[in-house]
Amino acid sequence: MTTDLRDPSASRDHGGRIDAAVARYGGERGDWIDLSTGINPVPYPIGDLPCSSWIDLPDHAANTALIAAARAFWPCPARAAVLAVPGLSLAISLIPRLTAAGRVSIATPTYNEHAAAFRAAGWDVTQSGAVDARVAVHPNNPDGRIWRAEETCAPLSIIDESFCDTAPEHSLIHLADRPGTLVLKSFGKFWGLAGLRLGFVIGDPDLVAMLAAMLGPWVVSGPALHIGAAALRDPDWADDTRARLAHDRDRLDNLLLGGGAILTGGTSLFRLYNHPHAQALHDHLAQHHIWTRPFPWSDTAIRFGLPGPNGWSRLQAALDSAP
Amino acid sequence: MTTDLRDPSASRDHGGRIDAAVARYGGERGDWIDLSTGINPVPYPIGDLPCSSWIDLPDHAANTALIAAARAFWPCPARAAVLAVPGLSLAISLIPRLTAAGRVSIATPTYNEHAAAFRAAGWDVTQSGAVDARVAVHPNNPDGRIWRAEETCAPLSIIDESFCDTAPEHSLIHLADRPGTLVLKSFGKFWGLAGLRLGFVIGDPDLVAMLAAMLGPWVVSGPALHIGAAALRDPDWADDTRARLAHDRDRLDNLLLGGGAILTGGTSLFRLYNHPHAQALHDHLAQHHIWTRPFPWSDTAIRFGLPGPNGWSRLQAALDSAP
Repeated sequence: MTTDLRDPSASRDHGGRIDAAVARYGGERGDWIDLSTGINPVPYPIGDLPCSSWIDLPDHAANTALIAAARAFWPCPARAAVLAVPGLSLAISLIPRLTAAGRVSIATPTYNEHAAAFRAAGWDVTQSGAVDARVAVHPNNPDGRIWRAEETCAPLSIIDESFCDTAPEHSLIHLADRPGTLVLKSFGKFWGLAGLRLGFVIGDPDLVAMLAAMLGPWVVSGPALHIGAAALRDPDWADDTRARLAHDRDRLDNLLLGGGAILTGGTSLFRLYNHPHAQALHDHLAQHHIWTRPFPWSDTAIRFGLPGPNGWSRLQAALDSAP
Repeated sequence: MTTDLRDPSASRDHGGRIDAAVARYGGERGDWIDLSTGINPVPYPIGDLPCSSWIDLPDHAANTALIAAARAFWPCPARAAVLAVPGLSLAISLIPRLTAAGRVSIATPTYNEHAAAFRAAGWDVTQSGAVDARVAVHPNNPDGRIWRAEETCAPLSIIDESFCDTAPEHSLIHLADRPGTLVLKSFGKFWGLAGLRLGFVIGDPDLVAMLAAMLGPWVVSGPALHIGAAALRDPDWADDTRARLAHDRDRLDNLLLGGGAILTGGTSLFRLYNHPHAQALHDHLAQHHIWTRPFPWSDTAIRFGLPGPNGWSRLQAALDSAP
């Protein structure tokens, strides 16, 4: 048994490895401030769950209600199919198996599970030339690149809008009725419930049906069906959250830009900075049990998620003491 | 959008369709007694969940703890790999895609998602002859058939022990270190938390690694990691539950056998009876908002799960008034 076997992402670079941070820098897990992901630190309130959501097989009516809420929230084109999945990672991993392997264009840097999944399914990953598939992470992680619709064309077009709910005016959801197109939506990031495992695949009905058949029945948990439907029917919470995230994003920029960092991109859920000593800054903050995200492809890039309400003063103090 | 798209099992015969029962026979969903599945009606107590299980990306340490608990509980051979999955249905659906399609032997009647998944992946499903794969649901659903180890041999051997935790003395888990073998364990049934979505694939490290790579990272929810580990570290609850289920199984048999039914198989989680008027009995009970399971392949077979503590008197009264 290797580590890889139990966690296929273990060999790839990701945020969210707080347990590894604790092992290296000490402290109690609960005392760490995790800024290594782009997850909203003020989650949607879970409320009381009906016991039946834990006990019963997730039923068709609950799934139908969740899908209806998703259709209305984004809003999805009528001709697009909508499938709920237990976390978007699973969809990202399986989508390359929906069609014959060929060449896929994935602009880098970006979220690295897309390329890993296409390679595992036998595809050639490229950044240019004629391709059979194209992945657009929109806005891109980590640099916040916004794609134009015409840049996303391909026989199989994946538009990953995991971080688009902070800026719905940029959404390309209207392309979900384009043949061969799948728009991906993450629930865990904007609604701050990454442990719940919920995401959506919206687009070409034939592709969505193939993916649904691969997943089998009852793939989304009862709690995810319940909480997801409640959250997607609550546009006021989403509006308030967008305003708060934008405010906190600016506050974070102000903290960092005073310390020699240059903003190079991001969204309201994460910020990418250039810093002349990015790795040293990462290490310094880790000694204060604040976990940020450097990148293996750059000596100067560092990404910060947003702290929760109780994290700002510690972050400011740690930044103030940086060498 | 068709119903099938959102629930690929909708066209197949399953228990657990309480919403369909309510639509046809009326009543409030919460007032129905669902005996159409084999899910323990007295679930493992969930207790208080740490907020982090909902909020954080499921971390490697929590997954490692769950796997260690699973290894100890069943117990798994040291050379077998153990993978947690978000419900066993997902694994059942993807396993036929781990190797080249060929001929698979699946004795019928049995849980019908196995054959559906193999067919969807291009396999020929047969009941006899030389095969490349074999599925043994052990004990079988619905008739409780117990398989001998030598009956499960094949280049790809799937031993589905979804219902074996009521009778661990019959488990073939020791075969999980046989090359090409995968033993499947369901959490939702014995522990009564089908909505949680948790299962395990235990066996050939190469096959398990391929399946893990197909699923991608963070596939099991934070609540499932937490509750699953607690439950699998609690053998006393499992022992008490086995004793209670055996008692209730006998009580159910006594109720049914007095009314013209003949026991033809089952486990402590469900009982298969022959009844000369099975469909009429099913309809009569449905009018009393008790949902049982007839089968499309038989006019006389009917399956009952166990009622919870508050269901017995209503079941008895409804059976007493059967024509």
